[in-house]
Amino acid sequence: MAHYKAPLRDMKFLMTEVLGAGETLAQMPYYADNDTADTDLIEQVLAEAARFAENELLPLNAVGDHEGCVRDEAGNVTTPTGFKEAYRKYRLAGWTALDADPAWGGQGMPHLVNIAVTEMNISANVAWSMYPGLSHGAYSALVAHGSDELKATYLPRIVSGEWTGTMCLTEPHAGTDLGIIRTKAADNGDGSYAISGTKIFISAGEHDFTDNIVHLVLARLEGSPEGTKGISLFLVPKFMVNADGSLGQRNGVVCGSIEHKMGINGNATALLNFDGARAYLVGEINKGMNNMFTMMNAARLGTGMQGLGLGEIAYQNAVSYAVNRLQMRHEPRTAPAQNADPIISYPDVRRMLLTGRAYSEAGRALALWLALSLDTEHHHPDAAKREEAADLVALLTPVAKAFMTDNGFNIAVQSQQVFGGHGYIREWGMEQFVRDARIGQIYEGTNSIQALDLLGRKVLMDGGRKLQKLANIVEALVSEVADDEELQGWADALSKAAAQVGTLTMVVGQKAMQNPDEANAAAVDYLRYVGHVTYAFLWVKMAKVALNAVKAGKDKDGFYKAKLQTARFYFDKLFPETKMLSATIKAGGDSLDVDLGMFGVERALASV
Amino acid sequence: MAHYKAPLRDMKFLMTEVLGAGETLAQMPYYADNDTADTDLIEQVLAEAARFAENELLPLNAVGDHEGCVRDEAGNVTTPTGFKEAYRKYRLAGWTALDADPAWGGQGMPHLVNIAVTEMNISANVAWSMYPGLSHGAYSALVAHGSDELKATYLPRIVSGEWTGTMCLTEPHAGTDLGIIRTKAADNGDGSYAISGTKIFISAGEHDFTDNIVHLVLARLEGSPEGTKGISLFLVPKFMVNADGSLGQRNGVVCGSIEHKMGINGNATALLNFDGARAYLVGEINKGMNNMFTMMNAARLGTGMQGLGLGEIAYQNAVSYAVNRLQMRHEPRTAPAQNADPIISYPDVRRMLLTGRAYSEAGRALALWLALSLDTEHHHPDAAKREEAADLVALLTPVAKAFMTDNGFNIAVQSQQVFGGHGYIREWGMEQFVRDARIGQIYEGTNSIQALDLLGRKVLMDGGRKLQKLANIVEALVSEVADDEELQGWADALSKAAAQVGTLTMVVGQKAMQNPDEANAAAVDYLRYVGHVTYAFLWVKMAKVALNAVKAGKDKDGFYKAKLQTARFYFDKLFPETKMLSATIKAGGDSLDVDLGMFGVERALASV
Repeated sequence: MAHYKAPLRDMKFLMTEVLGAGETLAQMPYYADNDTADTDLIEQVLAEAARFAENELLPLNAVGDHEGCVRDEAGNVTTPTGFKEAYRKYRLAGWTALDADPAWGGQGMPHLVNIAVTEMNISANVAWSMYPGLSHGAYSALVAHGSDELKATYLPRIVSGEWTGTMCLTEPHAGTDLGIIRTKAADNGDGSYAISGTKIFISAGEHDFTDNIVHLVLARLEGSPEGTKGISLFLVPKFMVNADGSLGQRNGVVCGSIEHKMGINGNATALLNFDGARAYLVGEINKGMNNMFTMMNAARLGTGMQGLGLGEIAYQNAVSYAVNRLQMRHEPRTAPAQNADPIISYPDVRRMLLTGRAYSEAGRALALWLALSLDTEHHHPDAAKREEAADLVALLTPVAKAFMTDNGFNIAVQSQQVFGGHGYIREWGMEQFVRDARIGQIYEGTNSIQALDLLGRKVLMDGGRKLQKLANIVEALVSEVADDEELQGWADALSKAAAQVGTLTMVVGQKAMQNPDEANAAAVDYLRYVGHVTYAFLWVKMAKVALNAVKAGKDKDGFYKAKLQTARFYFDKLFPETKMLSATIKAGGDSLDVDLGMFGVERALASV
Repeated sequence: MAHYKAPLRDMKFLMTEVLGAGETLAQMPYYADNDTADTDLIEQVLAEAARFAENELLPLNAVGDHEGCVRDEAGNVTTPTGFKEAYRKYRLAGWTALDADPAWGGQGMPHLVNIAVTEMNISANVAWSMYPGLSHGAYSALVAHGSDELKATYLPRIVSGEWTGTMCLTEPHAGTDLGIIRTKAADNGDGSYAISGTKIFISAGEHDFTDNIVHLVLARLEGSPEGTKGISLFLVPKFMVNADGSLGQRNGVVCGSIEHKMGINGNATALLNFDGARAYLVGEINKGMNNMFTMMNAARLGTGMQGLGLGEIAYQNAVSYAVNRLQMRHEPRTAPAQNADPIISYPDVRRMLLTGRAYSEAGRALALWLALSLDTEHHHPDAAKREEAADLVALLTPVAKAFMTDNGFNIAVQSQQVFGGHGYIREWGMEQFVRDARIGQIYEGTNSIQALDLLGRKVLMDGGRKLQKLANIVEALVSEVADDEELQGWADALSKAAAQVGTLTMVVGQKAMQNPDEANAAAVDYLRYVGHVTYAFLWVKMAKVALNAVKAGKDKDGFYKAKLQTARFYFDKLFPETKMLSATIKAGGDSLDVDLGMFGVERALASV
């Protein structure tokens, strides 16, 4: 079975030494007044979360994959052995309330803490982690857009974990393109609506964890305009809620089937049939897309976390295997008493391990930075700081989602490769990480959609304003380390690449003004380029702290030296991908402008 | 369900127009005398093979994945529904004998034809294709190294497909490192040996297709030296064979279990227990490693074909989906009568499709070129041509294995991505291609081992002699197209990259003389670089033919224009990976030379 040790040391390093989270959080009365900005408390909470992930969730991970969820003919879903009980413990220990508002029963901890807990839960059991994860999205949307009555009825029960939530967007013919959904809402004339239609791919859409499930559903109110401008957001409880808070009759929403998938088998991916289900409007009529984005932005960072968490555990297991697997004789011998040496003796094996490590550690830095920025955006008393944080979050959320899930999948694949043939066998658990990691690149908006969001909406439509803010942050760091001779090579590489982002943005932007296809053609490579600049920035930032610690003689356990060595690996072996990306972005969209007839699909095209 | 249309048109183009296979084969009496060099015949055979793959094998592909193989307590294995019957038809139609020597009942067709048939079988059903595939390896080893008696007893039955063969190398503690295997052979003193030990990961190691299975087994004869120099190759039949050719008693080899794997579920991956099994020596004592390599080189090209075949079918299905899936509105609209446009309208979707196409078409060109080179190596009357072909095969076999399987896996992943969420659902079949393609990167020597074989054995230990031959072939083509203005950009890129291979080889070679770890550190990136130079060479070669056809007004159906457009895509979007690889290779192994303590494994390391 796979093992897992939560990276608490690295989290502490990032929060306290790199991000100065304690000082930043202390500036926000919301946290300072709740006593939740205290770094000792945060450390305690994370240690407790680590225990839960390692001891309660990890042992269920392979079981969940093997058993999957089972649906009976009535539409009830049974989750894998142990899942329900683990959720009960999780809920009773207060984890579902962790970063929720005390006004609704939450503990008021920072997003920063929640994102770290999320990483650990994902590493230990991603399929299980999605049940509370989806609830969290529903919580955010209700807090932001729900009426007082809806909030009072539903939020305390979602925060306590007594009920869970879902996001119901996709339909069989409409995934990326929510403007063409067919699910209808009719006004009942009594303040409620009747929803009818079919939603698919609803994660945690049906289960046996809780007595009730709160679906947030996109639908078109009768008479609303076509397209995204006619979509509203509704709340549909599985069971109606009586005035006294007790559960009433079953609502008209039934799980029609659950999907057989490549992975995340422990999470029920439901097809939900809504048949005149009683529903309540969330936010204004026809503002459903905007309101749903409140959930989706959080969900996108959460999906990025799946790449981080799965990459981390896959990496950890590859390290163990590489230490214990003896094959061939390295010169000089590293285990001379044996007939072969541990495969970690070979540079190519370390290349695979360091790839996992360098991407995971930078990904963690990005995640915590964004989470702290979310805290700042929501709670900082200084409006300028709120705006700067909001811009950063808006710019880097698609990067976090796509870059982290792409890297996470690749780490899972490379870590599996370290195992040789054993990596392909189910019992080792490595192939599950690959299968589980694959979905992160697809859902919550495919990584292509993230790239279009970044290049189109966040950069070009923004006139490069947010991008310039990131460039300023980067250049400030480059200036800061100008006296550190040891960091100059990396700082130069970072500075040049950051400048190159500006150039590439201009090149693509000018072409795209003539032909929007040029932005579409460049977007995926562009996002990866920005991802590398972001990670290079974070590596210089981490290396600066590490170098100072080493110079000050504080590196007792080699932690800081390891950071510097990993930074070096990143700049030597991973960052050069920017050379390729720069070339492919500059090459533009001409080579993609091919005759569609070449695909041998004339007849199919003609019939469309 | 996935669909598949065999790429017969592309095969014909490559064989006749690009490789001039008919002329080359006609120079070899072995084929000319057997009338198997005839291109009309070859075309007929391929069309028949296409029908078998499309109609008989493809419908069993998802079934095989879903049902897997089942082992009973006695060690008998039942293959998935339909597999056995399909094999019976395949065998009776003579396909197992296709490129076997007529002396043993074979049809004497060129390797060239067999490799094309192999591609189609893999595309349609890779798990099934491995049963005859492994037999073919056993056939090659017996032809090259078996005694006359062994040949007479076993070859006709293997060629006819009445019996199948296996390769038994791996043991629980010994995969890459066959020098430490523990399986023992004792001399029975009657010309036979007694084999005892456990072999794992034996593909097609037990099944219900045939009455007998012929295992080729690596074992150490008692008294032989340690390491690879003490290993011999033995033949172990599942059932003994009587003097009259009838089957005798059950031999002491039993399937102890079959693996639960990520994919290729339709193929039984067996653990075989040998308990004093009666065995016969194949070739000389202690020459087992060399003899096994006869099988392994063929198996490595065959494994590369898995990357090609799976990439091709994944690509084909992604194209269909991209044509039929309507999402969002492209400007200008491509399906104005619909509420959305087919996603193939978007450049980023075409980028994913063209990646599959460009790698698949170049991979097919490489495979057919190598297969024709194998024919030349084995059968050409001119010794110089045989040697040149042998050098090319030796140099490019590890490239074909690793580059084609890496690309094939990536194509499967990108093609799955085109499907969005539907790609993650089992019923569409795309996720099976990803799972099935993953093993090709691992078995028959991991792709890291292939890279070490290329850089270490085939280039550095060879003093660059074989590499120079490839460079000469490349430069000859560059000169040939010097007058084609349209090809100059690509020819220049190819020429520069080929020169860069020389530079990189010198850089790595000089470092490696000081420290062998430097070769290990560079190998994987080096192989990918050589792969790109090879594909760039093939793309210029294909483009030259295509351009001439277009200029001559022969491009009735747009086939040749599509070649030129795909070539352009390759050079614009895929070939720039060489820029990254050049940088990572030059960066050397320093950043991999890290403190192993950083992996937190001191205790584990100390106990090794």
